[in-house]
Amino acid sequence: LQKLVIFGVGLIGGSIALALKKAGNAPHIVGIGRNASQLDLAIELGAIDATSDASEANIHAVCSDADLIIIATPVAQTEKILTLIKPHIGAHTAITDAGSTKSNVVLAARNALGDRFSQFVPGHPIAGAEKSGVTAANADLFIGKNVILTAEVETNQDALSRVTAMWQACGAKVSRMNAAEHDAVFAAVSHLPHLLAFALVDEIAHRPNAQQLFSFAASGFRDFTRIAGSSPEMWRDIALANRDSLLNELDAYAQQIATLRSLLSQQDAAGLQAMFEHASKARNDWGKTQ
Amino acid sequence: LQKLVIFGVGLIGGSIALALKKAGNAPHIVGIGRNASQLDLAIELGAIDATSDASEANIHAVCSDADLIIIATPVAQTEKILTLIKPHIGAHTAITDAGSTKSNVVLAARNALGDRFSQFVPGHPIAGAEKSGVTAANADLFIGKNVILTAEVETNQDALSRVTAMWQACGAKVSRMNAAEHDAVFAAVSHLPHLLAFALVDEIAHRPNAQQLFSFAASGFRDFTRIAGSSPEMWRDIALANRDSLLNELDAYAQQIATLRSLLSQQDAAGLQAMFEHASKARNDWGKTQ
Repeated sequence: LQKLVIFGVGLIGGSIALALKKAGNAPHIVGIGRNASQLDLAIELGAIDATSDASEANIHAVCSDADLIIIATPVAQTEKILTLIKPHIGAHTAITDAGSTKSNVVLAARNALGDRFSQFVPGHPIAGAEKSGVTAANADLFIGKNVILTAEVETNQDALSRVTAMWQACGAKVSRMNAAEHDAVFAAVSHLPHLLAFALVDEIAHRPNAQQLFSFAASGFRDFTRIAGSSPEMWRDIALANRDSLLNELDAYAQQIATLRSLLSQQDAAGLQAMFEHASKARNDWGKTQ
Repeated sequence: LQKLVIFGVGLIGGSIALALKKAGNAPHIVGIGRNASQLDLAIELGAIDATSDASEANIHAVCSDADLIIIATPVAQTEKILTLIKPHIGAHTAITDAGSTKSNVVLAARNALGDRFSQFVPGHPIAGAEKSGVTAANADLFIGKNVILTAEVETNQDALSRVTAMWQACGAKVSRMNAAEHDAVFAAVSHLPHLLAFALVDEIAHRPNAQQLFSFAASGFRDFTRIAGSSPEMWRDIALANRDSLLNELDAYAQQIATLRSLLSQQDAAGLQAMFEHASKARNDWGKTQ
């Protein structure tokens, strides 16, 4: 990897840059973004070597000889950026992204890249989303973390290897699955919990005695609702992008809540205990692996 | 406070004892429990000064001149203990408990204590329930934490003052509400979140691809489901004890999930964002006060 271009030098883009610098043998890294002060800060922090704006001439200069282009902007910008760079990427250039949903990104990339789609490797690093901005970036963010690549049948094997090697250099564990499987997995273990937490806090905050309720909420509530403090815009986009899987998850959970309600209503102590025990054992077994 | 008796010298009972010792001017503290090795450990840790078994003669000796008796056992034992001590408590003795639900405890205390019910002050310290046992006890557990006392109209004012002063000596903030209000508040901010977390983990753990799902779960899932690792028996008892309030909460939450599903199904981006923003702002405002 000689030359790397990062669109969006925030938490994810900045942390990739810092991780590659720390790993040694780092490529020349060019940062592109809408916020000039964030880019200047990224240079000051030693994350990137140069910056560029998104003018046609500069995009051509920056992208035509890049080995790898990483799109780490909010996911709603991905298709626009792919359309922008398509005429300028070299035959050798690999492109990847860091979006939390993959079927929609694959579709957008097919639209935007056309005959260059084989150069695109859809990716999803599973790492902290609470903080944002390059000041939150750190070189160790991806150490031991999962990164999923959802290559399609057309995906160029050399591009896939290059993206895999880049993430491994950041310390991540790289896995592969197809985009639909990815979206179903993350609907269950990430997107659904976020929606459930938003829903609970919204419902409580609308009550006449919300202030009293919050004043007696304690550590269980704090942890359960921490993800309800996440970015509303980001989660609106994720929910819409992964709508089909999430509707399935909401239906399965509503059914489970109905089961729980029925056990409680019937004072079925053994049934309640069986559900709680199964959950408690599974949660504590999982906790030991973390 | 000259003489204090604690039934159940575990996390809560042990922490009260250690806090009072640390505050200075501590009473003589007698611990009573089913597990002799826990009691010996409590003496070694300097939490209690003496132990007793539950024989009739010893209960009489220990309780007849006690200023305060604290019941900090699992809540299912409360009524049995109150029945046991009733013939032996002095006219001056105050009694309190530490159960997470209060309407059921008030009912049990009325049954068990009869004409001595005025000496009972129902209490609920809002402090850590994940760990248990006297080895988890610490003198600072209650500092800055809420304790709710749900005195009834008959409750003796002197007993109420004594229990209030005991908790204040432990560093807690003491509030009062009636038992029904208490149970409704904690159904919303504690009991419902626990049930929702148990329900989610149980549902996921039953799926054929549970292992794959857990292997990609990350920090959001970890915090959201932490309380699903809690004691199944304790939460079965709390759920049944606070059934009416919890059924109301489950119905309100099911309605909220239906609203969310409808917004998502209709791709109502503005509606989703409004719900997530309201929740995010409320959660982050609350987080600043913690």
